[in-house]
Order: sequence, then structure tokens, then C-alpha cells
Amino acid sequence: MNIYDVSQKAGVSIATVSRVLNGNPNVSETTRQKVLSVMREIGYTPNVFARGLGLNTMHTIGIMCADSSDPFLANAVYYLEQNLRKNGYDSFLCCTGYDLVNKQKYLQLLLSKRVDAVILVGSSFIEATKKDNAYLLEAAETIPVMIINGYISHPNIFCTLCDDYQAVYDVTNQLAEQGRKDILYLYTSRSYSGLQKLSGYKSGIQTNNLPLREEMMLSCPNDIASTRDMLIEVYDKGLRFDAVVASEDQLAVAAMKFAKQKNLSVPDELSIVGYNNSILSSCTDPEITSIDNHVETLSITTISTLMRVLEGNDVPNKTTISNDIIIRETTNF
Amino acid sequence: MNIYDVSQKAGVSIATVSRVLNGNPNVSETTRQKVLSVMREIGYTPNVFARGLGLNTMHTIGIMCADSSDPFLANAVYYLEQNLRKNGYDSFLCCTGYDLVNKQKYLQLLLSKRVDAVILVGSSFIEATKKDNAYLLEAAETIPVMIINGYISHPNIFCTLCDDYQAVYDVTNQLAEQGRKDILYLYTSRSYSGLQKLSGYKSGIQTNNLPLREEMMLSCPNDIASTRDMLIEVYDKGLRFDAVVASEDQLAVAAMKFAKQKNLSVPDELSIVGYNNSILSSCTDPEITSIDNHVETLSITTISTLMRVLEGNDVPNKTTISNDIIIRETTNF
Repeated sequence: MNIYDVSQKAGVSIATVSRVLNGNPNVSETTRQKVLSVMREIGYTPNVFARGLGLNTMHTIGIMCADSSDPFLANAVYYLEQNLRKNGYDSFLCCTGYDLVNKQKYLQLLLSKRVDAVILVGSSFIEATKKDNAYLLEAAETIPVMIINGYISHPNIFCTLCDDYQAVYDVTNQLAEQGRKDILYLYTSRSYSGLQKLSGYKSGIQTNNLPLREEMMLSCPNDIASTRDMLIEVYDKGLRFDAVVASEDQLAVAAMKFAKQKNLSVPDELSIVGYNNSILSSCTDPEITSIDNHVETLSITTISTLMRVLEGNDVPNKTTISNDIIIRETTNF
Repeated sequence: MNIYDVSQKAGVSIATVSRVLNGNPNVSETTRQKVLSVMREIGYTPNVFARGLGLNTMHTIGIMCADSSDPFLANAVYYLEQNLRKNGYDSFLCCTGYDLVNKQKYLQLLLSKRVDAVILVGSSFIEATKKDNAYLLEAAETIPVMIINGYISHPNIFCTLCDDYQAVYDVTNQLAEQGRKDILYLYTSRSYSGLQKLSGYKSGIQTNNLPLREEMMLSCPNDIASTRDMLIEVYDKGLRFDAVVASEDQLAVAAMKFAKQKNLSVPDELSIVGYNNSILSSCTDPEITSIDNHVETLSITTISTLMRVLEGNDVPNKTTISNDIIIRETTNF
């Protein structure tokens, strides 16, 4: 018996049950009585949400991220922890790796430490099948589950996303409008956010009536030198391109190294756009135009949503933030 | 009353007390009896070390790092967690920031969650005064405290360090031997490891009978563009240098940007050496010679030391690992 059962049986949202438990006045007396009677009927003890009342709470939030050495994830974790501290919460971070079994184990561990909520950072937490996401839905029955850059529609799961589709669409469109005809797309991951970016690229190509060619969408190794070598190889085999859109800044750095090797001038013969607006984009010469996914805003929004959830407010399950193109020297934008 | 009192009163090391508590056979019967009788006498309950027996242990290690967005720290955390998992331990990471009061609070939080040990990543955990380090010594009375890149001599505190002094000394010496006379040193931090690097530079200069000049040791802002601008400013005021040794790769990147602005050829007119061998050192053109502090080895060594401590072995308090110079294109090495 859990809060989800109560909400189902009473025919109200989980947020409403939470409001009743928290003594929030924005609940009608009729609803309040209905919820309380269902609780008595099914024998539900509100031990978890009682924490919202300051009873039994450790004021601790669990954060899960796949890989703390990924600069985007590391920055998100940094901003999350800073903002949690401002709100009087401590945080525990678990770096779970990419295996489902470890993700499940760590979530269980956090629940056993009685955290008030969990935040999953990065779309790698959304699995391909419903069955594999069951552990997240289960956790959401006892505590709020916040997801950054992934989306599951389910009660008590709250997602904050950046609009990766739109950002890649915009940049592809802009390159095409400037007359680039052979726009190469480089990516490493087929995560939720990876797929959003890829479909933004495809739409951008199609909107401009350019041919959508399989060989122009390259899955890359996860390091600069190997990606550079791969680009040299496909180029030597005859593939030609006048623009590169990369799903990560380091792939854009690899494209810069490729251009140098082949004596292509950037941006005139080859335009290059990176993603994440990380420190890498300002290391090269020329510096790389890159899409900023506003990791700080994403993190702050996640925490403010969480605080409203913990106070028992009704909060939308999905918040989307738009990205910006930070124009530097590798494009003629 | 704690394990430290027991070891003092019995006249044996903490490791020996730990061995007795863990039922390790490598203790003479006389010693064992002496330790047990001291425990009875002072009323010591070995609740903490009982975990080593598998009683009451959560098999969880607390990790503290100041800032997860720092690439060196993020990599260390990544390798630590990976190796803990291999050894059957989960980990909790707390990103404490740089304020002492938050460090203390997080350590207390980890202790309250009954972790089996804590690992402090980065020399920023060593404070300038003994008084400010008291919270670490206190924690060491109940669980092993592991420190990466910092050193405190105290029972139950185990430090793994890289030889930052030697690495900067070597590289400064090598530049001087190649005839560089005006070697600039750039740094950001006066942490334990920061001071080691600085004194390596000073020794390298003095060994080669070069003048040690205050204005050649520049404290830099923590971003590339501002550091570049600072270098342009001191250059325009007349400071000249034919080599740069940087305490962080990003300062070396800034030196590259300075060289480009002033049309200095690298490495012929200006040699540049970075530190950490991070991804930044391979982003630039030419790529940057950088000191590799073997973050993976540091992390693996820390975990293997910790495992031996938890098993009740006698383990040295300090392990030092040598660094390597990774020669790329910004030096004539």
C-alpha cells in the first residue's frame, strides 16, 4: 500500500494526497475527508510524506549520474548541489555507470538511506523499454523522482529538459540557408537526448529539401584522436562535406583537427558547430561555435520544481528550456 | 573513549587494535589480551570496527570532493567509484565546496550515515592551521580517513600523493638546461599541492643559478580569457619570458592564446608546459606538453590501501606516486 494506491482509490492526484498529508490548505474539505478515509480503509501509513512536515526528514536529496567525468554531467551536479545547499538540503551523489543493474542498486541504496527525493542527471537513465524503467516508477511511489534531460510521463516524476531537437534543427537550418549542402552530423550516443538531437538534424535537412543520406550521420568513438582519424578515413574514401554539426564539443574539436590535416579553412570551406558550450569550445583556434544547453538553468529549475513538489504544490511534470547558439569563429553566422 | 585512546593506553598502534577487533591472527596472544583488557578497563565498545566483521556494515564509503566540475577531481571520483564497486563497496559522494564549515557538515553527515570510511579527494581538504584540521583527526578516531593529494601525519589517516614537487622541478630544470632563462610560472591555488608545485619551480630555478624573481610567479584568474588578458598586460608592461610552466592545463591554453596574439612561435620563442594531462592539452594546435599526475593510479592505490586497512592490516600512512611528462608539441624536449 502506497501513496499511489491512495491516489488511485480516492480518484485524486498524488499531489493532492501529498497536500493532504502536508496539511496544505489548498484542498477542499470534501477531498481531504475522502483521502483520509481511503488511507484508513487501506491501512496506509504516511511515513514517507510525513518527512515533508519536518518529521523524520534528513533533508537529504539523492543525486544519480552515470559518469561524473562527463563535463556536462559534472557541471549539472555542481549546480544541483550548490542550489540544494541554498535551500537547506544536503545531497548524496551516486555515480552509477551505465549498467541498468547498478542504477537499480544505487536507487535502492538511496531509498534505504531515506532521502527525500532523487534527481537523475542525464538522459542515460531512461531505458529503451518500459519494463526496464519500472524501478523508476516504483521509486516514484514513495518519493519524488526528478529527471534532467529525460522524459517519462508518470505521477510523481518531474522532468526538466533542454530543447535539444530545436537547437540542432535551428543550427542545421541556418547552415543550409547559408548555402551549405553537405552537412555532416557527428554523434556518440543514442540516449533520449542523443535521439532528439539526431531528429533535429534530420528535420533541418529535410526542411531545406536536401537529401537525407545515411553516410552523413556518423557514429563516432568517444575520443578526439580516433574521431579525427575516422573523419580522415571517410574523407580519403571520397566523402565530402562543407559543414559539421557535432553532438558534443569534443567531436567538434576532432573536426577542427581533421580540417587542419586536410588544409581546409574553417569556417570558409568547413563550418563547425559543437554542443554543450564547454571549456573545450574556447580552447581551439579558431574558437568553436557551440550550442549552450544552459546546464545552470536546467539545474536551478530542477531544484525549484523539487522544492515546490516537497511543499505539496501541484507542479507540471515537464519543463522545457530553450537552448542558445553561442556564436564564435567556426561559422559565418 | 575511542580506538585512539585504546591504542595509546595499550601502547600499540591503531592498526593493531583494529586487528584485534577484526580477529586477525597476526597479533600475539599477549598483545591481544592487553588490548582487550584496556578496552574493558576504559569501557570501549567497538561498535565501529565491528563493521569490519560484516556486522552492521553497509559496505558504503563516503567520498568528499570540493568541486565535481574540476576535471581532475571528477576523474578521480570516477576511478574511485569504479574501483570501490569492484571491491563490493557502494559510495556516496558529497561535493562540499571550499568552505570549512560545509566540509565539516558533510563529514558529519557521512558519519551519521555510518559509512565504513571516507575518502577526501584533493588537497583543498588540508587547512592551513592545525585547529581547522581537527575535524579530520576526530573522524579518524572512528573510521579510516583516506586523503588524495594531501598529507596529514596521524593515526588512521592514509594519504596517497603524486609527487607534484618533483614533476615541476624536473620540467623547470629541463627548460633551463635547454637554455631558457626567463621561465614564467602560472598558478591559481595555494593548496597543499599548489605549494608543492610552486616550490618545485623555485628549486628548479635556483638549481640552475637563475635569479628567482617575484614577478615571474603569477597568480592567475580561474578562466582562460582573463588569464590570456593578464599575460598580454604584463607583456605590454615589459615583462619578457621564453617559457611558461602552468599549474593547470587551462592556464597553458591561455598562454597559447597569448602567444598567438603576440605572434610568438611555440615552442621556439615560447615553450609551454601544462599540468594534469587533461583533454584540454590535446584540444589546441600545437598540442600541449603536460604533466600527467596519474589520477587513475592515485585512485586505484587509494582503494587498495583502504581495502587493506579495512581488513585490519598494518599499512603505511603515506604513499607517493611519481608523475610523468607527456611530451607533445609545445616544447623541444
